Amino acid sequence: MQLNTATPEQLRQWESELLSEYENLKQQQLNLDLTRGKPSSDQLSLSDALDGILKGDYTAADGTDTRNYGGLDGIGEAKALGAELLGVNGDEILVGGNSSLTLMYLSAQTAFNFGLNGPDSAWNKQEKVKFLCPVPGYDRHFSICEQLGIEMVAVPMLSDGPDMDVVEQLIKDDSSIRGMWCVPKYSNPTGIIYSDATVNRIAQLGNIASPDFRVFWDNAYAVHDLNSEFEELANIMEACRKHGTESSVLQFCSTSKITQAGAGISFMGASSSNLSAVKKVLSIQSIGPDKVNQLRHLRFLPNKEAVLTHMQKHAALLRPRFECVLKNLEEGFGGTELGTWEAPEGGYFVSFDCLPNVAKAAVKLSADAGVKLTPAGATFPYGNDPQDRNIRIAPSVPSVEELDTAMKVFVTCVKLASVQSKL
Amino acid sequence: MQLNTATPEQLRQWESELLSEYENLKQQQLNLDLTRGKPSSDQLSLSDALDGILKGDYTAADGTDTRNYGGLDGIGEAKALGAELLGVNGDEILVGGNSSLTLMYLSAQTAFNFGLNGPDSAWNKQEKVKFLCPVPGYDRHFSICEQLGIEMVAVPMLSDGPDMDVVEQLIKDDSSIRGMWCVPKYSNPTGIIYSDATVNRIAQLGNIASPDFRVFWDNAYAVHDLNSEFEELANIMEACRKHGTESSVLQFCSTSKITQAGAGISFMGASSSNLSAVKKVLSIQSIGPDKVNQLRHLRFLPNKEAVLTHMQKHAALLRPRFECVLKNLEEGFGGTELGTWEAPEGGYFVSFDCLPNVAKAAVKLSADAGVKLTPAGATFPYGNDPQDRNIRIAPSVPSVEELDTAMKVFVTCVKLASVQSKL
Repeated sequence: MQLNTATPEQLRQWESELLSEYENLKQQQLNLDLTRGKPSSDQLSLSDALDGILKGDYTAADGTDTRNYGGLDGIGEAKALGAELLGVNGDEILVGGNSSLTLMYLSAQTAFNFGLNGPDSAWNKQEKVKFLCPVPGYDRHFSICEQLGIEMVAVPMLSDGPDMDVVEQLIKDDSSIRGMWCVPKYSNPTGIIYSDATVNRIAQLGNIASPDFRVFWDNAYAVHDLNSEFEELANIMEACRKHGTESSVLQFCSTSKITQAGAGISFMGASSSNLSAVKKVLSIQSIGPDKVNQLRHLRFLPNKEAVLTHMQKHAALLRPRFECVLKNLEEGFGGTELGTWEAPEGGYFVSFDCLPNVAKAAVKLSADAGVKLTPAGATFPYGNDPQDRNIRIAPSVPSVEELDTAMKVFVTCVKLASVQSKL
Repeated sequence: MQLNTATPEQLRQWESELLSEYENLKQQQLNLDLTRGKPSSDQLSLSDALDGILKGDYTAADGTDTRNYGGLDGIGEAKALGAELLGVNGDEILVGGNSSLTLMYLSAQTAFNFGLNGPDSAWNKQEKVKFLCPVPGYDRHFSICEQLGIEMVAVPMLSDGPDMDVVEQLIKDDSSIRGMWCVPKYSNPTGIIYSDATVNRIAQLGNIASPDFRVFWDNAYAVHDLNSEFEELANIMEACRKHGTESSVLQFCSTSKITQAGAGISFMGASSSNLSAVKKVLSIQSIGPDKVNQLRHLRFLPNKEAVLTHMQKHAALLRPRFECVLKNLEEGFGGTELGTWEAPEGGYFVSFDCLPNVAKAAVKLSADAGVKLTPAGATFPYGNDPQDRNIRIAPSVPSVEELDTAMKVFVTCVKLASVQSKL
């Protein structure tokens, strides 16, 4: 199919063929969901030993009774694991409840309303506050900005991270920029890893941006590799120390996609001055996180090595699903102009770019045929993909067989919407 | 000791006797803590069966896999228990994580920044926002107000609840009042229960206050009775329905002092319009609460009846401690002018009012003798007890023997500080 050089007759012929294929697929009355990056039931079962693992011993290594109040920033052994995962010092870590999103919100709220460096540094002292948002990106990040009234500025995502020429220029030109969202490893949704050079340039932003500028480094997929051989993500805190910008980056991760998605534990890594500002606000909202669940997690996965071993079991379940998606994309669109995608080595998503003005129509066709996808546009600030091109595919939940069926629907829908966009 | 009629010689004689008694007590080098309302280790052990109770079955009654993402307001069976505990309908409940304080903060933050009834209802649209704070009260409530910049207006606490004549008058006179803190059963710290008449008057405040006024009804001690015979707290939501003020009250409770203090589950009861405003803000901060822990709790305590049976075991541990405190107060101060107190039928505290200008000095003397008490003033807004009279005693953690020793120190310190205040 060469759509640009096709005659109207040829296009109509293709449309009619694709329509009949589409109607056949519809007959199957599918009900499949590729919308969110959730672990499958089999993945969740890998951690079923968590409940009951304490065997009546609720005491942390330092003697803390985890059942009682106290300990705003978590138990010692959980802090040690978090520091290992995020590559920070032992005094640069806070361990939270079941959601790293909550820690990101807390950090943004602290910076916005109270300031990470005293009251004068509060972002709301500025008339306008802006954030850089590499796109496509993660909708829940964008929602935090939207709720706080932070204006989002889209930045193109390349295959080695955000376009740093654009990022640096924007920061130099616009003093109202106060932050940037990053998912540095297996980026949501494009699946790429930030290169060492990109990490190093991000670590230097603290030297050209406002002193109140913060990179929100959401390392959600820090250990979520599909293969045993993988590219290492450079340590951002180490790079910051080299450039004297330790306070410019706030790191986050959680065990949501390591153990139980709704019942894991979360980590924040940051300079001790950032952490103490955040803890001051947190202390008004909470007496402390669920330390019992932290202890359960540490008994189950006592260190990073244990985490990595555990993650191989996830990889074994996820790998065939990613292979299935990529095989279908290759068969459907290889060598055509209809779509481009990356082949991620980890994470939870495959990001697909169709021709302009095709994504929304393809997602709609797909939903009508019983295959739900993340709404087109969701990967952009304000839900607005200006070219209407990006579709996020989340392959973790369906079985490989279901996924194969869903991808056949997807391919047909993208082709049909592409042809119809030219008619 | 009749301090007011005593001669200076008599006072000095008493001081010297008390000082020698005090020095003897100091020799014991005690290290006892009566500062916070925490369950004792024995109380916490009553719920040790929580970990492991799921026996591999993580599925809620409606088929929800509690291990995965989703379900912003909790699982069905937890909602049913919360509705029973707070006396609200099934659609008037939200179940949260390990802290009801977090739900109170979320509610205050929602009302302050975003409005519980649309953006125009946001409290921050007003130049000045005030809250009524019955005193003595709970310091963590006051901290929320202080952080949000809400001005606190103290209201006297009587033996049947806040002085409602004062409350109603203040609300009529001052349109900037947007809320009131209440701990209606076994009030923190005075231990009293709001009478039916008081509950009924509070339910009518919604008809005289701003439409954006909310009572924060922290029913932290809803089932924390020391005796099997106890005064019932009137159902505030029922009273509100009678007066058409369902949206004027936000209720909270948790299992912190039922199961594990740091690892329980929390509940919010409110009209569905209040809940939907709160959930809109919550959905930006979190994908949902820890549903696995909710399920654990419901397997352990499936309904209110089971909760009440469980609470009798707590009562058996707490009762002798309260008796010890009251016996020491009676022996030390019965029939004197040196102090007044209530005899609570539940909760976690005994509140003691000394003579004016004595509390701080007594707490300091006590700390120097190894018995830590909640800082004097902490039970008042801004930490400022204008008469310097109130001391909160939290007897749950020490053993009865330790507590008896601590109370002897307390009595001596109050007497000594009282005498010294007259010299």
